[in-house]
Amino acid sequence: MNFASDNVTPVCPEIQAAIDEQCTGNAPAYGNDDVSATLDRAFSDLFDHEVAVVPVSTGTAANCISLSTLVSPYGGIVCHHEAHINEDESTAVAHFTGGAKLLPIDGPAAKLEAITLASFLESRVDRGVHSVTPECVAVTQSTELGGVYDADEIAAIGGVCQQFGTKLFMDGARFANAIAALDCHPADVTWKAGVNALSFDGTKNGALAVEAIILFDPSLRAKAELARKRSGHLLSKHRYLAAQLAAYIRDDLWLKNARNANNAARALASLLQAQGGSILIESQANELFVALPDAAVTRLRDAGMLFYPWPSLGKQAYRFVTAWNSDIDAINALKTRLQSS
Amino acid sequence: MNFASDNVTPVCPEIQAAIDEQCTGNAPAYGNDDVSATLDRAFSDLFDHEVAVVPVSTGTAANCISLSTLVSPYGGIVCHHEAHINEDESTAVAHFTGGAKLLPIDGPAAKLEAITLASFLESRVDRGVHSVTPECVAVTQSTELGGVYDADEIAAIGGVCQQFGTKLFMDGARFANAIAALDCHPADVTWKAGVNALSFDGTKNGALAVEAIILFDPSLRAKAELARKRSGHLLSKHRYLAAQLAAYIRDDLWLKNARNANNAARALASLLQAQGGSILIESQANELFVALPDAAVTRLRDAGMLFYPWPSLGKQAYRFVTAWNSDIDAINALKTRLQSS
Amino acid sequence: MNFASDNVTPVCPEIQAAIDEQCTGNAPAYGNDDVSATLDRAFSDLFDHEVAVVPVSTGTAANCISLSTLVSPYGGIVCHHEAHINEDESTAVAHFTGGAKLLPIDGPAAKLEAITLASFLESRVDRGVHSVTPECVAVTQSTELGGVYDADEIAAIGGVCQQFGTKLFMDGARFANAIAALDCHPADVTWKAGVNALSFDGTKNGALAVEAIILFDPSLRAKAELARKRSGHLLSKHRYLAAQLAAYIRDDLWLKNARNANNAARALASLLQAQGGSILIESQANELFVALPDAAVTRLRDAGMLFYPWPSLGKQAYRFVTAWNSDIDAINALKTRLQSS
Amino acid sequence: MNFASDNVTPVCPEIQAAIDEQCTGNAPAYGNDDVSATLDRAFSDLFDHEVAVVPVSTGTAANCISLSTLVSPYGGIVCHHEAHINEDESTAVAHFTGGAKLLPIDGPAAKLEAITLASFLESRVDRGVHSVTPECVAVTQSTELGGVYDADEIAAIGGVCQQFGTKLFMDGARFANAIAALDCHPADVTWKAGVNALSFDGTKNGALAVEAIILFDPSLRAKAELARKRSGHLLSKHRYLAAQLAAYIRDDLWLKNARNANNAARALASLLQAQGGSILIESQANELFVALPDAAVTRLRDAGMLFYPWPSLGKQAYRFVTAWNSDIDAINALKTRLQSS
Repeated sequence: MNFASDNVTPVCPEIQAAIDEQCTGNAPAYGNDDVSATLDRAFSDLFDHEVAVVPVSTGTAANCISLSTLVSPYGGIVCHHEAHINEDESTAVAHFTGGAKLLPIDGPAAKLEAITLASFLESRVDRGVHSVTPECVAVTQSTELGGVYDADEIAAIGGVCQQFGTKLFMDGARFANAIAALDCHPADVTWKAGVNALSFDGTKNGALAVEAIILFDPSLRAKAELARKRSGHLLSKHRYLAAQLAAYIRDDLWLKNARNANNAARALASLLQAQGGSILIESQANELFVALPDAAVTRLRDAGMLFYPWPSLGKQAYRFVTAWNSDIDAINALKTRLQSS
Repeated sequence: MNFASDNVTPVCPEIQAAIDEQCTGNAPAYGNDDVSATLDRAFSDLFDHEVAVVPVSTGTAANCISLSTLVSPYGGIVCHHEAHINEDESTAVAHFTGGAKLLPIDGPAAKLEAITLASFLESRVDRGVHSVTPECVAVTQSTELGGVYDADEIAAIGGVCQQFGTKLFMDGARFANAIAALDCHPADVTWKAGVNALSFDGTKNGALAVEAIILFDPSLRAKAELARKRSGHLLSKHRYLAAQLAAYIRDDLWLKNARNANNAARALASLLQAQGGSILIESQANELFVALPDAAVTRLRDAGMLFYPWPSLGKQAYRFVTAWNSDIDAINALKTRLQSS
Repeated sequence: MNFASDNVTPVCPEIQAAIDEQCTGNAPAYGNDDVSATLDRAFSDLFDHEVAVVPVSTGTAANCISLSTLVSPYGGIVCHHEAHINEDESTAVAHFTGGAKLLPIDGPAAKLEAITLASFLESRVDRGVHSVTPECVAVTQSTELGGVYDADEIAAIGGVCQQFGTKLFMDGARFANAIAALDCHPADVTWKAGVNALSFDGTKNGALAVEAIILFDPSLRAKAELARKRSGHLLSKHRYLAAQLAAYIRDDLWLKNARNANNAARALASLLQAQGGSILIESQANELFVALPDAAVTRLRDAGMLFYPWPSLGKQAYRFVTAWNSDIDAINALKTRLQSS
Repeated sequence: MNFASDNVTPVCPEIQAAIDEQCTGNAPAYGNDDVSATLDRAFSDLFDHEVAVVPVSTGTAANCISLSTLVSPYGGIVCHHEAHINEDESTAVAHFTGGAKLLPIDGPAAKLEAITLASFLESRVDRGVHSVTPECVAVTQSTELGGVYDADEIAAIGGVCQQFGTKLFMDGARFANAIAALDCHPADVTWKAGVNALSFDGTKNGALAVEAIILFDPSLRAKAELARKRSGHLLSKHRYLAAQLAAYIRDDLWLKNARNANNAARALASLLQAQGGSILIESQANELFVALPDAAVTRLRDAGMLFYPWPSLGKQAYRFVTAWNSDIDAINALKTRLQSS
């Protein structure tokens, strides 16, 4: 009953097996092994588009290396105030890009809206060298507040980016949860909607430590690989990253894991509402933001539940994150037990 | 018979087991788990000195984060021309330190010598803001050419550093091989000899992907942890790094693995000499640099051996690297077989 | 009648004479000349405090080199949204500091208020490595919207900084105008109020191109001088910077020039009000933000007046900046002429 | 008789007059003035090629901003060990480029030779992400040891650059002295020979503080201007930079000044040889490296001469730098006087 975050989870069995499978013979280092060689094809098939895949072991690396291929050191990156790259990655963006500046704006459920974005970009046109010119827009899918962009919303943002000549980056630390919630093809909310690069999750959704930088313009690969090396993110035993990723997308494991997390969130929402909780942000993904009476908080904690307060949404606000290994039956059972007590 | 490098090896069984052990329950992220909590104590015991341990997943990260705690963006880092940080880590040092400059000098077997170092540092005293002031000296143990510093040699270098007010950093990507070769206490060639920070190997010697930054001045921890976060090297499932490290030093596994590699190198040297090879650099560790007749090269490759030419040491020069999983019996058997053919 | 900015002005006669005086003999380069040698003493006297003076040729350099001595690459700098370092210096702050992040907050007349600042700093306490920790607060005196902090206001901010362990930096691009407006000792709004470093104007108020970094902790000098050199701001013919500065503070020239600018602003305000303008922000310094009827705008432009619209304050808003060479008599005469027409 | 350097000199009369001329009316800031507007045309005429001119106030800024337009943060810059960018600009190159690495090689008189360069570049081909790929070659004209490249030498280097796909940058801190020595068209040793960007001197040869970045590919202008702004090198009173530059090339003032310096060097060489000195490096420009008997050193210093020892060329080695204001008659008179004493 640990809902503190989805990164408290262990490695899922399928990925554990893939790692174990690599624990026998020798193999070439730095990505020259056989498993690494399969990734471009596998992800190009997954996205129905020729992509370059650059695996790394953290989301910060995936986000910032991606951004460093899209913006200059003088450029600006428009994002939501709540964006992970703005709030939770220290000064990583400036470090990786050589100084590019985050330009945060607002929007509901930590989502950017096309109209607000257009208005902001309009205000930054032709302001000369003193001002920071937006060169990229960054969205998170699903967002830091559990929001999910549908294909039309991303396409609208992509259209604004095209109009103003900026790139579009997607932080997909919980991309699987969004796709599972939308039940759409991953292409629909990425390259078809104008996304240039994506951080494709892994770690939170069952891997040990892997995120895939997906470059929808494969010519950016060289730049990303140079940035990866100089930032210390090229693993010598690269096959262990590759093996995680390959297993993660084989037989739709990524979606299976995400569906469990999303369904668990629905079950948990039902439990929380039954305890007097009110949902603060509508979500179809795996993060819940709920206002809870103090008595309910005590009851839930007494029942062994772990979760964090979320003061930016109010004094009574709490965040619950479900994961690939959340036990839906146990949640339902607890719901019944708490109601009858 | 893959002697291309020691990073072609898989994870060793003990570390695999430690990873597998973490594949069941949930645990706090970002180093707040139980295994991570044991590392400072375990390494302080190992080194017989209070240390701060900061695990990361690559040697480049370990080296560069360490250096970033020791030098300013305006400073210089004296190292050997052959040093990995100078030759094989792209522009990582400048990236992590904010611009510090490598100041390479020469020495036999890729080793710095105290007298040459002193003379170089002397030449850089009081040169004003135009010139780069050395703030740190970096040595590699064992070196990129298989050299091993004994305790007296490191202490002499440490003395020079103290005299000129510079820090001393040790890249220990093959530290275990050096300690196994020297058969000394790890303290003898580190803090007792003036070393301020050490990259303690793991990956090449049996781990999946882990190196430990060992800070002999624990007050540098905060700086290292900030640098780790902003460079994307703080893993959310940090327990998997910690589990590797804990297993790696438990029951002297690190030394057991290194001894096998070193012994295999001796066996291989014997084989190569029997094939007409001449040792180019004396080494007690796990890298061999050998001049080989063309016919021998053909014979060895026909026998399934993998190894690289090393042109900087001459046209006939080759490098062989043994590892924790090198099969000494097989090497000896091959030696016999080749001699009798 | 050019009120576009105070940087459209030429060099004032006293400083021109000081430059010309240096146009005869040779002198040591890089600040080893006789005039440069006088600056620490002269400014220490001016501020009644031992200071280190590091002259540079632009405000961006003065601000960013100062900040680089006060914050780490991982740190945050709290400033007003309207602050020049946030809005008008491109990505300079990140470039000079190695990645420190601006953390903008709000306040009237582009001024920070102690209470808002305290509340913001409180919200950033103990947030760990993911979040950016504020290491410095930056104020502008006088502000980008013509506001002037009095001694009590700065002292209140300085007190908050001390409470939260942050440094306090002052961008004094129009420091002279503030001191002239407050009619106080420069110590009152700087070191006595907790300011650690100050960019002391020059260029806008009569110099060719010079700003003085004033370090109230002289031990920061070495760091500032290294940062100056590596950023290309150490002039070889440094005496020309020094000569400007020396002349600028000799016989209170800086205050004389600023008083003319401030008085001209009062005269201009009177003219603008007579034309139907309404003052948007109360100011005692040399920047006016005024709402003007369209007809008045036309009349003023027809009369040869140059000034900019300031859309962030509204559709009818305009900025007027007076300077050391503004002709108060001419302003008054124009006022009369326009009223009688 | 100050031969310590050419940057000990004052501003020359023509440039002083140009500065004074700007000391009357107001003018738009940041390069939007009338004089700044003339520079592209004037320099395009001078070089007989369409160029973009970006004036800055120091050589370090000119060199490093230029380089930042030519190389990536991951790239290498091949230069001579003695190059000013390698030896005398602190960590400026890494600071401005975001981490690009200097790759120093050797050559006589601090000159690169095409054959050595080709061999070095050949050795760096296809070395992957671990190694730093040379992206630019940097030469100094005239060199730090007084050497002058003729057109054929630069063209040979330019050819090698083209062959290996690197850019070619020229540090022209004493470009005028080289052109005066060669008596050739400035195009011959720049764009016609493959140079992509040039730092065109000013300060050492009579200006107050100005160097012009000359971009032979004008499309690099935007990048240079952004780099200039963020590094604090965009002067608000830009007309004072422009006025210096305009005066500097008007009526060949730059060559007149350089010819005086070069001729003075010849006269001084004659004096020094008469005193038992032996020329260490043949030069037609304005730097002399001379071995001198101790007695001669004493005699020259007694006669009021200032000059520096140059230990890297030997114990008896000294450097003498002549300048636009060196008094050739006085040198000749001193020669006679010393000989007769």
